[in-house]
Amino acid sequence: MRNVNQDNLTEVFLGYLGDDVNPRLREVMGSLVTHLHAFAKDVNLTHDEWEQGISFLERTGEISDANRHEFVLLSDVLGLSSLVDMINSRSEGTSSSVLGPFHISGAPALEIGGDMKGDFPGPVLVAEGVVKDVQGNPIEGATVDIWQTAPNGLYSSQDPEQDTYSFHGLQTTGADGRYAFTSVKPVEYTVPTDGPVGDILNACGRHPWRPSHLHFIVKADGYRSLVTEVFPDDDPYLDQDTVFGVREDLVMHYEPMAAGTFPEGFALSGQVDEEYIRIQFDLTLVSG
Amino acid sequence: MRNVNQDNLTEVFLGYLGDDVNPRLREVMGSLVTHLHAFAKDVNLTHDEWEQGISFLERTGEISDANRHEFVLLSDVLGLSSLVDMINSRSEGTSSSVLGPFHISGAPALEIGGDMKGDFPGPVLVAEGVVKDVQGNPIEGATVDIWQTAPNGLYSSQDPEQDTYSFHGLQTTGADGRYAFTSVKPVEYTVPTDGPVGDILNACGRHPWRPSHLHFIVKADGYRSLVTEVFPDDDPYLDQDTVFGVREDLVMHYEPMAAGTFPEGFALSGQVDEEYIRIQFDLTLVSG
Repeated sequence: MRNVNQDNLTEVFLGYLGDDVNPRLREVMGSLVTHLHAFAKDVNLTHDEWEQGISFLERTGEISDANRHEFVLLSDVLGLSSLVDMINSRSEGTSSSVLGPFHISGAPALEIGGDMKGDFPGPVLVAEGVVKDVQGNPIEGATVDIWQTAPNGLYSSQDPEQDTYSFHGLQTTGADGRYAFTSVKPVEYTVPTDGPVGDILNACGRHPWRPSHLHFIVKADGYRSLVTEVFPDDDPYLDQDTVFGVREDLVMHYEPMAAGTFPEGFALSGQVDEEYIRIQFDLTLVSG
Repeated sequence: MRNVNQDNLTEVFLGYLGDDVNPRLREVMGSLVTHLHAFAKDVNLTHDEWEQGISFLERTGEISDANRHEFVLLSDVLGLSSLVDMINSRSEGTSSSVLGPFHISGAPALEIGGDMKGDFPGPVLVAEGVVKDVQGNPIEGATVDIWQTAPNGLYSSQDPEQDTYSFHGLQTTGADGRYAFTSVKPVEYTVPTDGPVGDILNACGRHPWRPSHLHFIVKADGYRSLVTEVFPDDDPYLDQDTVFGVREDLVMHYEPMAAGTFPEGFALSGQVDEEYIRIQFDLTLVSG
């Protein structure tokens, strides 16, 4: 188009889309480019700023690999990941919350009551709950993919000192819908700040902290998959999570339990005689 | 923020920006994230679509290197590069047009009248013009960085058969402001389609063609730098450039010249006795 200009460029772009384009792709690309163009015009984006943006994307690509998902982290700190969670959440079920950049596939099976703490230091945590439907019926055969940081605040994929699947486990519920495991109390931690996303946080005067949490992906036939997290109600970063992941129904009380009260049915039963922490967190799935 | 939701997320994001943030950064990031969130809400972006987007960015990063600038190409085919050119163009000067992903720094000096064609086949092109200010006065000491495709439609960085700086040259104007060189007529070509950006073009039912062109970056002390291109007025892709680079004032007549009329003052003078093509393209810089 010879006479393309600021005012008709978006329209010209839309006119370039072929007649046979998938209607949903047309809708998504059309909206994306309309907003992209409007952004550039709203701020009168300069060539220097455009070059900084391109350079940022190139550096984000360079630092990414199978274990480091810097584009996911970018989406997280810009609030896009949480927004997609909110858009796709159903109020009847447990809220979803950010997947984050640290999930790895292939976690080993963890029996109900199994242990992820091993020899790591820190307070023992007993976590359990029921995977259920919106009527409260337990769901049998649901898989609960669990992952969290070690006490040093690092996920296994960030930490050469940990085994690949350290603090990762996959449980499958029985007829009672129950998942249950022992671990160590997660700690608050910073998202990685040594890459381009850290540079953005720094330039924007933002801290990189997340409140402590356990991650879950819950799947069951006939239900929408749920990606979520659970947070303790006394965490100092609850109201300023750098990736916007906290939802009211995901904040739980971590109950301090007296010595000598450790429950039966756990791999650590009989081995724990000091104080520990217990959380109860049910996971409600929506059909679909 | 515990009660963050779809309606207040953008506001919460803006509230995370520190008090001391550079005001321009605040404006640009604020607008970018406002539009990003509005896009996701406008289309009710799904988790699957978000994952496709992240995967697209990761693949774009993977294919990028010092010679392949896939993010620039992405910006080009989405019209962002051209929009930034338009926003920053001044009507008094020559229109700017896309830099594209194939510019390389460090082009060798090319004397006025020098040759870039060498032994490559194809019609000889004589290109010349004056670098001038908006009053029409020639600008001395301007640098004109020139690059184009070889007759096979490939830039040197794409083509292992070419030398690094094949079809690249840097001229510096004298008191008359004139640049002049011989080359081969550029050809229309496709942007690279073997990467993620090619996948987008394909999915959107768009062709990957650009009209043939010569690229220029013109710099002179006291003037705004100019990145531009020149197109022949008979090119079949003038009205459907896949990167939206064509502007009316950048379309020139490529004059067919009779055998025996080759001008003096060129490295090829006396060697060319057949027909050739001549273009005259002045480059007007705006002070700044």
